[in-house]
Amino acid sequence: MTKHVVAIFGIGRIGQVHLKNLVNCNRVVVKWIVDAGCMKEKAHGLIDQLRLQGETTFVEIEKSDKVFANDEVEAVFVCVPTSFHAEIAIKALNAGKHVFCEKPLAATLQEVKECYETAKKNNKTLMCAVNRRFDPQFNGIYQMKNEGKLGKIRIIKMTGSDMGNTEEYYKNNPGGIFMDMGIHDVDYICWLAGEKPSSVYATGCRCGTSAEMYARVGEYDTASAIFTFPSGISAHLELSRECGYGYGQNVEVLGTKSLIRSHDLKETELERVTKEGHHLDAVVECFTTRFEKSFQAEIHHFLDVIEGKCECLVSPESYIISTEVVIALTESLDNGDVIKF
Amino acid sequence: MTKHVVAIFGIGRIGQVHLKNLVNCNRVVVKWIVDAGCMKEKAHGLIDQLRLQGETTFVEIEKSDKVFANDEVEAVFVCVPTSFHAEIAIKALNAGKHVFCEKPLAATLQEVKECYETAKKNNKTLMCAVNRRFDPQFNGIYQMKNEGKLGKIRIIKMTGSDMGNTEEYYKNNPGGIFMDMGIHDVDYICWLAGEKPSSVYATGCRCGTSAEMYARVGEYDTASAIFTFPSGISAHLELSRECGYGYGQNVEVLGTKSLIRSHDLKETELERVTKEGHHLDAVVECFTTRFEKSFQAEIHHFLDVIEGKCECLVSPESYIISTEVVIALTESLDNGDVIKF
Amino acid sequence: MTKHVVAIFGIGRIGQVHLKNLVNCNRVVVKWIVDAGCMKEKAHGLIDQLRLQGETTFVEIEKSDKVFANDEVEAVFVCVPTSFHAEIAIKALNAGKHVFCEKPLAATLQEVKECYETAKKNNKTLMCAVNRRFDPQFNGIYQMKNEGKLGKIRIIKMTGSDMGNTEEYYKNNPGGIFMDMGIHDVDYICWLAGEKPSSVYATGCRCGTSAEMYARVGEYDTASAIFTFPSGISAHLELSRECGYGYGQNVEVLGTKSLIRSHDLKETELERVTKEGHHLDAVVECFTTRFEKSFQAEIHHFLDVIEGKCECLVSPESYIISTEVVIALTESLDNGDVIKF
Amino acid sequence: MTKHVVAIFGIGRIGQVHLKNLVNCNRVVVKWIVDAGCMKEKAHGLIDQLRLQGETTFVEIEKSDKVFANDEVEAVFVCVPTSFHAEIAIKALNAGKHVFCEKPLAATLQEVKECYETAKKNNKTLMCAVNRRFDPQFNGIYQMKNEGKLGKIRIIKMTGSDMGNTEEYYKNNPGGIFMDMGIHDVDYICWLAGEKPSSVYATGCRCGTSAEMYARVGEYDTASAIFTFPSGISAHLELSRECGYGYGQNVEVLGTKSLIRSHDLKETELERVTKEGHHLDAVVECFTTRFEKSFQAEIHHFLDVIEGKCECLVSPESYIISTEVVIALTESLDNGDVIKF
Repeated sequence: MTKHVVAIFGIGRIGQVHLKNLVNCNRVVVKWIVDAGCMKEKAHGLIDQLRLQGETTFVEIEKSDKVFANDEVEAVFVCVPTSFHAEIAIKALNAGKHVFCEKPLAATLQEVKECYETAKKNNKTLMCAVNRRFDPQFNGIYQMKNEGKLGKIRIIKMTGSDMGNTEEYYKNNPGGIFMDMGIHDVDYICWLAGEKPSSVYATGCRCGTSAEMYARVGEYDTASAIFTFPSGISAHLELSRECGYGYGQNVEVLGTKSLIRSHDLKETELERVTKEGHHLDAVVECFTTRFEKSFQAEIHHFLDVIEGKCECLVSPESYIISTEVVIALTESLDNGDVIKF
Repeated sequence: MTKHVVAIFGIGRIGQVHLKNLVNCNRVVVKWIVDAGCMKEKAHGLIDQLRLQGETTFVEIEKSDKVFANDEVEAVFVCVPTSFHAEIAIKALNAGKHVFCEKPLAATLQEVKECYETAKKNNKTLMCAVNRRFDPQFNGIYQMKNEGKLGKIRIIKMTGSDMGNTEEYYKNNPGGIFMDMGIHDVDYICWLAGEKPSSVYATGCRCGTSAEMYARVGEYDTASAIFTFPSGISAHLELSRECGYGYGQNVEVLGTKSLIRSHDLKETELERVTKEGHHLDAVVECFTTRFEKSFQAEIHHFLDVIEGKCECLVSPESYIISTEVVIALTESLDNGDVIKF
Repeated sequence: MTKHVVAIFGIGRIGQVHLKNLVNCNRVVVKWIVDAGCMKEKAHGLIDQLRLQGETTFVEIEKSDKVFANDEVEAVFVCVPTSFHAEIAIKALNAGKHVFCEKPLAATLQEVKECYETAKKNNKTLMCAVNRRFDPQFNGIYQMKNEGKLGKIRIIKMTGSDMGNTEEYYKNNPGGIFMDMGIHDVDYICWLAGEKPSSVYATGCRCGTSAEMYARVGEYDTASAIFTFPSGISAHLELSRECGYGYGQNVEVLGTKSLIRSHDLKETELERVTKEGHHLDAVVECFTTRFEKSFQAEIHHFLDVIEGKCECLVSPESYIISTEVVIALTESLDNGDVIKF
Repeated sequence: MTKHVVAIFGIGRIGQVHLKNLVNCNRVVVKWIVDAGCMKEKAHGLIDQLRLQGETTFVEIEKSDKVFANDEVEAVFVCVPTSFHAEIAIKALNAGKHVFCEKPLAATLQEVKECYETAKKNNKTLMCAVNRRFDPQFNGIYQMKNEGKLGKIRIIKMTGSDMGNTEEYYKNNPGGIFMDMGIHDVDYICWLAGEKPSSVYATGCRCGTSAEMYARVGEYDTASAIFTFPSGISAHLELSRECGYGYGQNVEVLGTKSLIRSHDLKETELERVTKEGHHLDAVVECFTTRFEKSFQAEIHHFLDVIEGKCECLVSPESYIISTEVVIALTESLDNGDVIKF
C-alpha cells in the first residue's frame, strides 16, 4: 500500500492529537510539520518521540511555500488558530492539495463559501473536521436513523458542557459561544435532522461561577437555543462554557419508533454502594479522551475520501448550513428575536 | 385522632385514585361521593370494595347542595371534568369548606384568580393538585436545591411524554397541549426556578404516528418551549402527546454545584445480556403507576395544611404564575412570537 | 364473585402485611383474626383502620378451635412464629381448611413432610409462602428460562443481605443463617435449577461490625455456599445477616443464551453528577418495600390455586428439597465437609 | 531522560500488544525482537509499521544468546508460549537482565520458585504480568481498600468469562481452566484479600454450547470455586471458557463499609428505548480492548520498579500463593475434595 504524503500546519494541542493519529494510522508519511519558529523545539521533540527522524522535517510558517510547491505532498492538515484556517486552506487547495481543516472552517459565511468554491475549482477535497459526526456514539445514532430504528425524528436534544477557558482565550477567540463551541452541536443537529431549520431562537446568560469574567469579555457562559425544522422536527441545544461536573456531551433523539440517548463516558465503571446510595465514577474531563475515537476515525475517513472510496460525510452544503445557523443563533442571542430562514 | 369528614366530587379515573388514597390514609371519613346519576352503580361498587358501607353515601350532583350545607363536611375533593372545577370549588369555599382541586384549576386566568380570592375571603385552603411537586423524585430535586446541593440553578430541562388519547378526548378537552398536559411541567419549572419567566417561546408540530388525527382536532402532538428567567436561568420543555416508549417524565437541572437528573421508572430492574447488548425493562406505561406516591403525598400534605401544620406547597401566587405561563406558551405556539412578561 | 372466608393467625409484622393485602385484594372476607390475648388492642386498631367492623372478629389463640370448627372458613393464613407453624397448619388441614403458611414451614424435614402428608390426606392445598418465587424480578427470570431466553442454565449466583437483628431475635430463632434467612434463596436456586443438588458445601464467618454479638449467640453473620447440580449447573449463594448498604437481594443467572441479572431496587431514580462522580439513590432498606408486590402476588396465587385455576407454584416436592438442602448447608457450615445427596 | 534498552521475546498476539505499548511509552529502545525464524516477515512488518528501522533488529530464537550477552540490554520481555517462560526468564536473569514475563510464570510451583530464586540471586526484578492488578477498575478497588472505603472485606466475588478457544488451543495449553485462565482471578482475589486461603473447594462441568469438544480435550467449560481465608473472608470465583455475551470480567467486594462492583465495559454508551425496554450496547468482545489500559500500566510499573521508584506490585510471595491456590483448585476440581492449606 502506497502511503499518502502529507504536511501538518500547527502542532498546538489539537495539532498534536492529529499528528499522533496520523503516525499511528499507518497510511501516511508526514513529510512536514509547519508552525511558527518558536515551535521548532517542540516539533523536534515530537519527531524524536514519534520516531519520525528521516521522515519528517520542521518548516517555519514563513517558508511554507515550499510545502505548497512540493508535488509529493498530497494533503494538508490545518490545525492552526481559527483566524488562519481559510487562508491556509485556500492556498493549499490552489496548490492542488486536499485539505483537512479543524473547525470552524471560518467565522464568516463568505469565507466558508470561498473555501468550498476553491476546492471545487481545483477538484480537491476540503473536509472540515466536525468530529461529532465521527464519534462512535453520535455517529451510531445517525446510523440507527438510516437503519430505520428511530422512525421519523421528532425532537433532538443536545448538551455541550465545556471545562472553561481563560480570560485570554476568550479575548483571542471572540466568535461567541455558538461559533467557538456550539459549531459542533449545531452541525450535528442539522446533519442528523437532514435539513436546514426554518427558524431558530436563542437565549443566554452569565450565571456560572465565573460570571464576572464572562461579563468582562462580553461572552455568555450559558446559552440555550431552540430550532424549528420544516419537517416538524424541533431541536433543543444547551451550552455551558464551564460546567462543574466534567466534559458532558449528550444527545437525545426522540423518533416515532424509539428514543435514543448518548450518555457521557465515565473514567471507570466502578460502583460503590453504601447506605447513602450508589456512587459511580466521574465523567471524563477532557475532549481528547471523550472524542479519542472520533479523532482517529475522521482521519481514516478523510483518507478514504481522497482515495475515492466514499463520499465525504461533511458535504459543503451541510457545513454551509451549520455556519448559517451558528450565525443566526449568535444574532438571536444578541437581539432576542426569532430568526427565520 | 379525630378524622376529617370529606366529600369527593367525581369518581372517574383520577377520582378513584384519590378515593382509594383517602380511604387508605386513615385520616378521613369519606361521607359523600358526589357524581352524575349514571355513576350510581359504580359508586356502590366502590363502597362495597373499599368497605365503606355505613360510612359513605352516594349523592347525585344535582342534589349536592346538601353536601355544601352539611356542617360536618370539612373539605371537598374536586375530581370532575376541568370545565366544572372552578364552579364547584367556589361553591365549596363559600360554604366554608377547604378545597383540594385537580389540575388545572381553571382554563382562564380570571377564573383562577377568582377561585383564590374566594378562598382568601372565606379564610379556607384551596390547593390545586399539581402532583409533580409531590413526587419523591421531582420534590427531591426541590429539596436538594434548598439544601444547597445544586448551587445556583442555570438550566432546567423537562420532558413530558404521554401515551396518547382518543380524538373524542381532544374534542372534549380543547385547552391545547400546554394547558392540558403541560401545566404540570410548566408549574414545576417555575416553582423550581422560584421566579416568573421574563419571556417564553414555543414551537410545535404534528409529526407523530397519528399526525392526521391531531390535525383534525387542531392540536399539536409535539411541542417544545424555552423559558428565560430574570436571574439568568433558562428552561427547556419538550412535550409529546404520544410517545412510543412509555410514560417518560424526566427532569434534568444544571446548577453551579451539580447536575441532577430524574430518570423514568422501569417495570422491573431486570437486565438481560446477550452478544447484542444489555436489555433493561420498559418504562412504566401509566401515570397512576409513575405518580402513585405523589398522589398519596399530596393528600397527606393537604390534610397537614388544613390542620395548620404547614404552609401549602402550592401557593396561590405560584399557581397563578403557572397559569399565566401556560397561556403565554399557547399564544407563542399559535403565532410564533417570543412572549415577554 | 363469591368471596373466600378466611382466618389469619398472627398479626405481627408479617401478619399485618398479609392482612392488609387480604383486605385490598377484594377476593376474601377476613372473618377472624387469631392471636395471643395481649394482641387484642392491636387487632381492634387494625379492624378500625381497615374498616373491618362487622366483618372481622378477634379470637384469642386459646379459643381458636371455634375457627377450625367453623364451616364457613375455607382457608387459614399462618403468620405466627415459626415454631408454631406446623402445629397450626396440621390442625387447619385436618379441619378441612386450605393453608397458606409463612416460611419456613418447619425446621425439621420430618415436620415438613408431615405437613404435606396431612394436606394430601385431606385433599387440601398447603402453600409455603416462599416469596422470591412471586417477585416480579425473580419470577421474571423463571419465566425467561421457560421462554427459552436463557438457554441452558450454567451458573446461578444469589445474594441475600439483611439489615441485622437483635441478640434477642437470634436467641428466639436459633435455626441458623441458612434456615432463618437462606431458605428463601436456597428455595429459589433449587426451583430455578429444576433439580436437587448432588452436593453442597458451605463456609461462614463472623466478620461484620457486630461479630462479637454473633459469636455470643453462636450464629454466623456471613455465609457462602456452592451447590453442584446433576445437570452441571453450579450455584453460588452469599448471605449477610447485616449489610451496610441496604436490603440487597440479587440474582444473576448465566445461561448458554444470555446472562440475566436482577438488580436491587433504589429509593428513587434520582442521579446527581458532580466532579467527584455520579450519585444514585440508596437501596431500599426494608423487605416489605422490596417484596411488596411478591406479598400481593402470592396471595392471589394461593386463591387461584384453591379456586382450581392453576397448580401451586410451590409444590410439596420442591419445598421438601429446599428444606433438605438448607439442612445440609447448615451441617456443612458446622463441620466443613462437602455434603453429598 | 535515558531510555531503557530492551529485548522482546515473542511477537504473537500478546507480544504485539506489549511491543506497541513499549514503543508508545517513550521510555525504551526496543533493540531486539526475538522469535522463531518463521516470524521474520511479521517482525519486519512491525518494524516498518512502528517506524523502528534503525532501532530494532530481528533475531532468531536460536541465536538469542547474543541478546543475553549484550550489555546494553537491561530488560527482557517474555511473551512466548507458556512452556518456555521459565527457561527464558531464568536465562535472562542469570545474564543480569530484569525480566517482565507473561502469565503464568510457570505451570509448576517448583519452577515458579526457581524463577524467583534466580531473580533474587542475581538481584534483578522478575515481574509476572498478572494484569488485573493494573486495571483501573480492579486496581481502583485495591486502592479503595487501602483508603479505608471498603472497611474490612467480607466477601469477594469474581467472574471471568472468555470467548472460547479452538480444540487445538486446549491441546497445546493443557494446564486446566484454573491455570490457563483462572490464574488472573485467583491472583487478584488473594492479592486483594491480602492473605493465603485456609481452604479452597471447586466444582465444574461441561454445560456450554461446545460441551462435547471440552469433553474430548478433557477440559471443563465452566468452573466454580469458593475460598475461605483465615480472617473470615470468603471468595466466590466463577469461570466460563466461553460465554455468549462478551468478555465479561467482574468483581464485587462486600466490606463492612461498602459494597464495590466493577462492571463490564460496553462498546458505546448508547441507549435505545422502545416499548419493549431499554437497549444498551454490548460488552466489549476482546481482552485487548478490556484491558488496554492495564497492559500499558503494567509496563510503566515495571519500568518504575527497575528505576527504583517503587516496589513491585507483584511480590514473589504473593505470586507463589496464587500458584499454590491454582494448583489446589485444579486438584479439588478433579477429586471433589476441600483442599486445606
